[in-house]
Amino acid sequence: MQMVGIRTSLIRAGDDIVEILCEAFEKHGVFLEDCDILVLAESAVATAEGRLVKLSTVVPGKIAKELAGKYCLDPREMELVLCECDEIIGGVPGAALTLTNGTLSPNAGIDASNAPEGHVVLLPKDAQKSAAYIRKGVEEYSSCHVGVIIGDSRTQPLRLGCMGVALGTSGIVPVEDARGSHDLFGKPLHITRKAVADNLVSAAQLLMGEADECIPCVLIRGAPVEMCEGSEEMPLFTPEECMYYSNIKRT
Amino acid sequence: MQMVGIRTSLIRAGDDIVEILCEAFEKHGVFLEDCDILVLAESAVATAEGRLVKLSTVVPGKIAKELAGKYCLDPREMELVLCECDEIIGGVPGAALTLTNGTLSPNAGIDASNAPEGHVVLLPKDAQKSAAYIRKGVEEYSSCHVGVIIGDSRTQPLRLGCMGVALGTSGIVPVEDARGSHDLFGKPLHITRKAVADNLVSAAQLLMGEADECIPCVLIRGAPVEMCEGSEEMPLFTPEECMYYSNIKRT
Repeated sequence: MQMVGIRTSLIRAGDDIVEILCEAFEKHGVFLEDCDILVLAESAVATAEGRLVKLSTVVPGKIAKELAGKYCLDPREMELVLCECDEIIGGVPGAALTLTNGTLSPNAGIDASNAPEGHVVLLPKDAQKSAAYIRKGVEEYSSCHVGVIIGDSRTQPLRLGCMGVALGTSGIVPVEDARGSHDLFGKPLHITRKAVADNLVSAAQLLMGEADECIPCVLIRGAPVEMCEGSEEMPLFTPEECMYYSNIKRT
Repeated sequence: MQMVGIRTSLIRAGDDIVEILCEAFEKHGVFLEDCDILVLAESAVATAEGRLVKLSTVVPGKIAKELAGKYCLDPREMELVLCECDEIIGGVPGAALTLTNGTLSPNAGIDASNAPEGHVVLLPKDAQKSAAYIRKGVEEYSSCHVGVIIGDSRTQPLRLGCMGVALGTSGIVPVEDARGSHDLFGKPLHITRKAVADNLVSAAQLLMGEADECIPCVLIRGAPVEMCEGSEEMPLFTPEECMYYSNIKRT
């Protein structure tokens, strides 16, 4: 399994991300192959999709002002968090814990990093759609069947530092079901599923960096991943099945 | 960055894991290089260290029996969970959420998968020490400076499927601090840390599998990881800083 970071030009609102990627492939002499997987940073995808918001245009309401005080956030950013998330569960200074598109995220995934001064980037509106769009474009360009993952970084409970999380995928099976297979001693495995897409994003994050690297894409070749047609929905745990979530209380 | 799974012979209690690894390197013609990283499955390390327990030798107490009923576990396994963990926080059927060695894990990391019939494997007693021991042995064998990570798989809140988590490391900086660096627009980054070790384990899990693959080790070459002498302790979040944990209530 091999991985290489793809450096691109700086991505701006209104850019076509497929064009920018294909330009980068040409520039660096990258020839795609069948079953290659592209992991894309959500901030790059969202920026191209015009999901940048100038904070000075946002007028925070009363609830946003209150919560901004509680979680030490800019009230205008808090207003956007309220618009974007399904629910605010609680939080710590600097991070309101939200449920957004079925996934837990700090501040509804809204981030000022890698946004122009005075702006923030929202998450892509529909990361599954974004992944499908990019896959279609890259497949037309390369005549190869590829997988595309839109990835974000996320802390995990009681762990320091960010890992990867897949917001949307296209062309790969995002969670592999190992139930029904057997362990080293021939005993059947019962509940083991592999978060393949999340693991691929975590791997890619090693090469992406979080700072000024301008590597919004990582090409992964040779990963033992099940490819598929179309975009399989990210399967999610129900709250009742999740050992963490079943103990999370709203504050 | 390149990754390759290292297939070994079946590991049994009392085996020397360093010997087994070096045999596998010889057999597959793997020549280590400086800065190579080895990710090892905790179950293989723990098995070699004799952390297998025959369930029929365990006599569950009253509390274990009660909790086993609550979380649908074998009372004898529950007794071991109580011995191994620092605290039981709550749980769902099949998984008691525990705090064990400062990390959240289901059932104190105790697992019947890849253990002989009627046995379970406990976590390595001190994964930092195990990592240091393996690094020393592999470095003597190869005359190269390598990094070693003992990895486990773990679900994440509301995500389906397992990702990687590092239980112990040696020779690498497990969490990189990107604070002080700058984003694409030259703005300083404030709170970004990278869970490098966890990401490396997640990457390795793509090749390791959970089932009967007998690939307890993945060699990672060319990862942009900071090497170090000795074994840097895994830095952990304080519960107050963690946006998940601060909302987790004991049940």
